[in-house]
Amino acid sequence: MKKSKLFEKWNVHLDLAVEAHELLRGETNQDVPGVIEKKETFRHASVNTITITDQRGEKLLGRPQGNYVTLEVPEIKENNFEHHKKISEILAQKLSDLIRFHEKASFLIIGLGNRNATPDALGPKVVEKIMVTRHLFHYAPEEIKGNLRNVAAISPGVLGITGIETAEVIRGLVEHVKPDYVIAIDALAAGALDRIGSSIQLADTGINPGSGIGNFRKGLNEETLGCKVIGIGVPTVVNAAVIAHKTIEELFAEMETHPSLAQIYDEENEESIVSVMEKALSPFKDSLMVTPKEIDELIETTSRIIANALNMSIHPGIDPGNDETYLM
Amino acid sequence: MKKSKLFEKWNVHLDLAVEAHELLRGETNQDVPGVIEKKETFRHASVNTITITDQRGEKLLGRPQGNYVTLEVPEIKENNFEHHKKISEILAQKLSDLIRFHEKASFLIIGLGNRNATPDALGPKVVEKIMVTRHLFHYAPEEIKGNLRNVAAISPGVLGITGIETAEVIRGLVEHVKPDYVIAIDALAAGALDRIGSSIQLADTGINPGSGIGNFRKGLNEETLGCKVIGIGVPTVVNAAVIAHKTIEELFAEMETHPSLAQIYDEENEESIVSVMEKALSPFKDSLMVTPKEIDELIETTSRIIANALNMSIHPGIDPGNDETYLM
Amino acid sequence: MKKSKLFEKWNVHLDLAVEAHELLRGETNQDVPGVIEKKETFRHASVNTITITDQRGEKLLGRPQGNYVTLEVPEIKENNFEHHKKISEILAQKLSDLIRFHEKASFLIIGLGNRNATPDALGPKVVEKIMVTRHLFHYAPEEIKGNLRNVAAISPGVLGITGIETAEVIRGLVEHVKPDYVIAIDALAAGALDRIGSSIQLADTGINPGSGIGNFRKGLNEETLGCKVIGIGVPTVVNAAVIAHKTIEELFAEMETHPSLAQIYDEENEESIVSVMEKALSPFKDSLMVTPKEIDELIETTSRIIANALNMSIHPGIDPGNDETYLM
Amino acid sequence: MKKSKLFEKWNVHLDLAVEAHELLRGETNQDVPGVIEKKETFRHASVNTITITDQRGEKLLGRPQGNYVTLEVPEIKENNFEHHKKISEILAQKLSDLIRFHEKASFLIIGLGNRNATPDALGPKVVEKIMVTRHLFHYAPEEIKGNLRNVAAISPGVLGITGIETAEVIRGLVEHVKPDYVIAIDALAAGALDRIGSSIQLADTGINPGSGIGNFRKGLNEETLGCKVIGIGVPTVVNAAVIAHKTIEELFAEMETHPSLAQIYDEENEESIVSVMEKALSPFKDSLMVTPKEIDELIETTSRIIANALNMSIHPGIDPGNDETYLM
Repeated sequence: MKKSKLFEKWNVHLDLAVEAHELLRGETNQDVPGVIEKKETFRHASVNTITITDQRGEKLLGRPQGNYVTLEVPEIKENNFEHHKKISEILAQKLSDLIRFHEKASFLIIGLGNRNATPDALGPKVVEKIMVTRHLFHYAPEEIKGNLRNVAAISPGVLGITGIETAEVIRGLVEHVKPDYVIAIDALAAGALDRIGSSIQLADTGINPGSGIGNFRKGLNEETLGCKVIGIGVPTVVNAAVIAHKTIEELFAEMETHPSLAQIYDEENEESIVSVMEKALSPFKDSLMVTPKEIDELIETTSRIIANALNMSIHPGIDPGNDETYLM
Repeated sequence: MKKSKLFEKWNVHLDLAVEAHELLRGETNQDVPGVIEKKETFRHASVNTITITDQRGEKLLGRPQGNYVTLEVPEIKENNFEHHKKISEILAQKLSDLIRFHEKASFLIIGLGNRNATPDALGPKVVEKIMVTRHLFHYAPEEIKGNLRNVAAISPGVLGITGIETAEVIRGLVEHVKPDYVIAIDALAAGALDRIGSSIQLADTGINPGSGIGNFRKGLNEETLGCKVIGIGVPTVVNAAVIAHKTIEELFAEMETHPSLAQIYDEENEESIVSVMEKALSPFKDSLMVTPKEIDELIETTSRIIANALNMSIHPGIDPGNDETYLM
Repeated sequence: MKKSKLFEKWNVHLDLAVEAHELLRGETNQDVPGVIEKKETFRHASVNTITITDQRGEKLLGRPQGNYVTLEVPEIKENNFEHHKKISEILAQKLSDLIRFHEKASFLIIGLGNRNATPDALGPKVVEKIMVTRHLFHYAPEEIKGNLRNVAAISPGVLGITGIETAEVIRGLVEHVKPDYVIAIDALAAGALDRIGSSIQLADTGINPGSGIGNFRKGLNEETLGCKVIGIGVPTVVNAAVIAHKTIEELFAEMETHPSLAQIYDEENEESIVSVMEKALSPFKDSLMVTPKEIDELIETTSRIIANALNMSIHPGIDPGNDETYLM
Repeated sequence: MKKSKLFEKWNVHLDLAVEAHELLRGETNQDVPGVIEKKETFRHASVNTITITDQRGEKLLGRPQGNYVTLEVPEIKENNFEHHKKISEILAQKLSDLIRFHEKASFLIIGLGNRNATPDALGPKVVEKIMVTRHLFHYAPEEIKGNLRNVAAISPGVLGITGIETAEVIRGLVEHVKPDYVIAIDALAAGALDRIGSSIQLADTGINPGSGIGNFRKGLNEETLGCKVIGIGVPTVVNAAVIAHKTIEELFAEMETHPSLAQIYDEENEESIVSVMEKALSPFKDSLMVTPKEIDELIETTSRIIANALNMSIHPGIDPGNDETYLM
């Protein structure tokens, strides 16, 4: 059974486009039509950019046309502020490369996720650290114009707590705030453990269904919100089904020297694998997440990196070369 | 100088209609036209109902026509859960008296105020304790209909943190959620110390300008939101100008046996009193609040009382006579 | 390779004595000497009591002589307050059965774990809901004596945040507070998914090394603290290695009809299994936890159940038959 | 009636030595024996150092012999990170001037106050931002020695929440952690509004009775803890009695051109003034605090300034001239 099908069965989302692309290439052994991949290397980050250029790529990767930039930054997990600052600067640079904000652009920063569940609290934690200015613009526009842009920020909470679909809350907000850009921050689910806390994804297509730790959220994108939407996320969990599946893969790899086992592997029908995984994850179904014990530190560090990058990118008065940029 | 004028100068809001009414009667020595006052006594509460019946009353009391029910419940400050439960029940009863919710009514509960500043955190603290059900209604309507009503709840944050006027956030929400009733909870500012933590106001006119600890908020009412709006609040602070003014009053009262002082009091011009108060409150202007040291306990207790009253009133399946009603 | 050995390798703790006992019996196919097991059934709970009676049992189960009572209460996961209240009452009853507190007993309740990491926040969340009275005893002893006992409560934080071993903090506290009983609450790690959020363990031996989500904590027991120590815990996570191992077990079970596979299973050496698991959990080692997405609700519910049980058991003035007992 | 006597009556603490000194000089019109005052001016701060040199000064100022350094830094209230950073550096410098920490010194940072009541939350908020290292010293001492010192940090909570005197908790901790220095951070009560959020006090005598918002806490000093204790505080509130008293003073000042009033002022007996204030503050006694509406921002800013100063002063590897020093 194909990994992609198994993942679908367990509601395993590959929130990183780079993972979805890898999986597809692995299963088809060929380039994905309608998708361009580009790689760069910096001192503290490797950057992978997936561009979906047409409807074929859109359909195959299951996400809208646009750019998906992934920073691979394993140094996030080290406790080194100097490196974290560099990562903030690279992220700010990549955001500038992706979109040139016009001088008077206004922003609404949205912290998705549940502030009460640590692995899902990335968005609200970033929003706490954003330099909000929108309320100042009514009174002193001229003085501020040169250095700051107009920024609002809010964490709308999650369906289970408010009873309201996040997308509904946000549509209502956008209609009233009328920002030029929405930037939505969310904790992501990865398809492999080594992505946890080591990648940051930046997308100019917004946040689309299946994002987040797996709660269904309606898309936040130009079509639904009427303005450009940028999505930023960091994988903080993987679905436990990924562990079960990876174990099976590794077991078969381990045993491949046994000729009889190779035969079994071929014969083994899909139902058996599904059944094994169902039993391994019982009595839960698709709602188990795997996360490191130090998740609180990881959320604190990544939220600071993202908030600093946003404060730098948005407010021209905050010069990345100066001391005061690394504020929070 | 009239107290009402001085209060205006220091941006002192009398969020309780009962206080505004008292002040007006005190200054005019006569009944206020267009206003009816009614008093009741319960074992654990005195209840005062001010009804503004026409435009004269509206103008004089500075708030819209409608009912303003104040529970005077000094036992809130005692640490007795049994009494708190009774107060919840009286509040639930008064809410039912004020408005008969139809069987399938839907609600949006809004927690106004700043969760990071304890004296202003009443609204967010109530929202945390509300039994939210709206997200369940899509999937299992029949089963639930008999016992629960459709409830959403959210705390939109404050202007200084989000950069967005609370009223804008709420209008956006109401347009999407389309509730039959909005219930807005807010910490109030009183005009006298003995109101702090001892009164609960319930109004069928919503929350209107000047409410809250004094931050300007646009009105939340049927006119602006397009549905019935109920406001619930508890005074948690008084403006420091109230203390200064009260001190002056008491000083003159103390001295009234001095014939020469009586004369001075008459002669003393308004500017002098204003000047004394300005100096007493310098370098702050109108942004000082007075609050008890035990404000964290007060917010915890009152938020539980209000949340319990709302859960009981809204969900017919929660019978006030049963154990399970006093939930949080 | 024996499961117990594999678990040791991945630092998998079976914090529930009932699980350690099951594992041992499974591997040895016989009764464990020095251990007595007793089962009872209530309407809302099955209760399993493991008593370690001598040093043989102590060594085999890896924990001190004493009683380990496990309530199996799957209804915790249902959103039914009435049932939660019953579970509180059973827990209070079992606590009374385990230890008869003398009339003037004094207590120190300790909330272990990290308040910033939701799956580990059980202890601090219980402590927030405890009715603390110790500070009242200096001033009004006579009036209070009849209804309340002397209770202090604190959450000392975790090593990574304070830099101080939790056991050090607690020893210092106990020397100064001099309670008759310490009751320590902690989130536990289970050895099987079906234990998450469905069991409560009560032990009259305190909390012993390896407890908690797997951070090493020195023992909290009569020997180290000089007073009776009661431990209460709820499993909130399992180590991800448990999922990997369970997957392998289920895979072999699934394939056992293949004669050749049965042979492989026999032949497969221990290193292979270890290697499969290492690869499946790479790049993490033993620090991955598996937890349900709704962990915030689970922590909220179980902390309320435990706090209510403690408030009822400790304060004779709170009658379990009365309304006001279910307070928080 | 002397101001000092009135203040005593209302439990008004002058936590700033500089205020106690001013008051005393004002009342006696002469230098205070046993006290030396020194003033310095920096670009972003005026610094006042009160040194109590003998028992006369000790008795007159009501606090132990030692140094009390007050930074007057009104720019704290401006939203300018660059200035806040300079204030951190001046504070770090003054701390170094006060005490030369030896190379291998170890520290216990204690956050006093109640994290749930915003005006009292300064200590816990500073502790959250401290770079804790003590747990690393067991494993990698050599590598770390050159750049970091041994730091533990904890917020013990308040009596009303834990039931335990803060001083008891801390004594227990100090006996086990055995630091060379305790640094205790606390929100202070000022005697004048203009001190709120504009002064930082640094004392090498610890924290002594009457400190904090007015809750009685036993002294934390070398005598009670057995190691050097440094106290750091920022005024966040004034007792409401201060406002009442200031109003009376200003009223009399305003009226001093009235000859008859001057006479009354002389005649007015102490009981009258006390009675006026009691009525003005009724039904509360001495437990009302006055604090600005923006108290949450003030606590956030000052806690960042103090935490940065401590991180710089304590860890030699953090060079104040480098970017990475302004971390949190």
